[in-house]
Amino acid sequence: MTSAKIDGASIATQANVYFDGKCVSHSVTLADGTKKSVGVILPSQLTFNTGAPEIMECVAGSCEYKLAGESQWHTSGPGEKFSIGANTSFDIRVAQAYHYICHFG
Amino acid sequence: MTSAKIDGASIATQANVYFDGKCVSHSVTLADGTKKSVGVILPSQLTFNTGAPEIMECVAGSCEYKLAGESQWHTSGPGEKFSIGANTSFDIRVAQAYHYICHFG
Repeated sequence: MTSAKIDGASIATQANVYFDGKCVSHSVTLADGTKKSVGVILPSQLTFNTGAPEIMECVAGSCEYKLAGESQWHTSGPGEKFSIGANTSFDIRVAQAYHYICHFG
Repeated sequence: MTSAKIDGASIATQANVYFDGKCVSHSVTLADGTKKSVGVILPSQLTFNTGAPEIMECVAGSCEYKLAGESQWHTSGPGEKFSIGANTSFDIRVAQAYHYICHFG
């Protein structure tokens, strides 16, 4: 079950804006130092590069994604997660808004 | 001085998407129940309607705004705030991204 909210968070007030606003997120730090972001991807097809490994958790809407080297798209909907390794990339395509929590590390 | 972050807060994981993504915000609730949102407006000219009174605080970037009934645009930059009454509207135009905290009530 996906969290409707994240409690006890420190929230960066300045948004992260990627791809001319097709992806907008806010960075969140938990009390234990864990970093996440909450964001939305609007209708588009985008390629993201990772630094740290990431887990993308769908909060609402859905997306299709394809990890580097994969030929097939996978669907991810509410409550579903997918993992991306460090220093790689993934393609994501969104037909409606895809709301997500990105868990780092 | 504008806060770079909001501590000890609960953040809604699903974004609020307005005007096809020209405005994206996340709702935030403080420990004492105070509600705010953190968001960004991308280049556009938009009209917002208020329910509760709002104070818009610029975190980064800038905007021009005009309250209902006003004929002149005002500029608001980092650290600056403007207030909007209950049940009215305001126009806002943004040439680059305008990052804000919206304080309600």
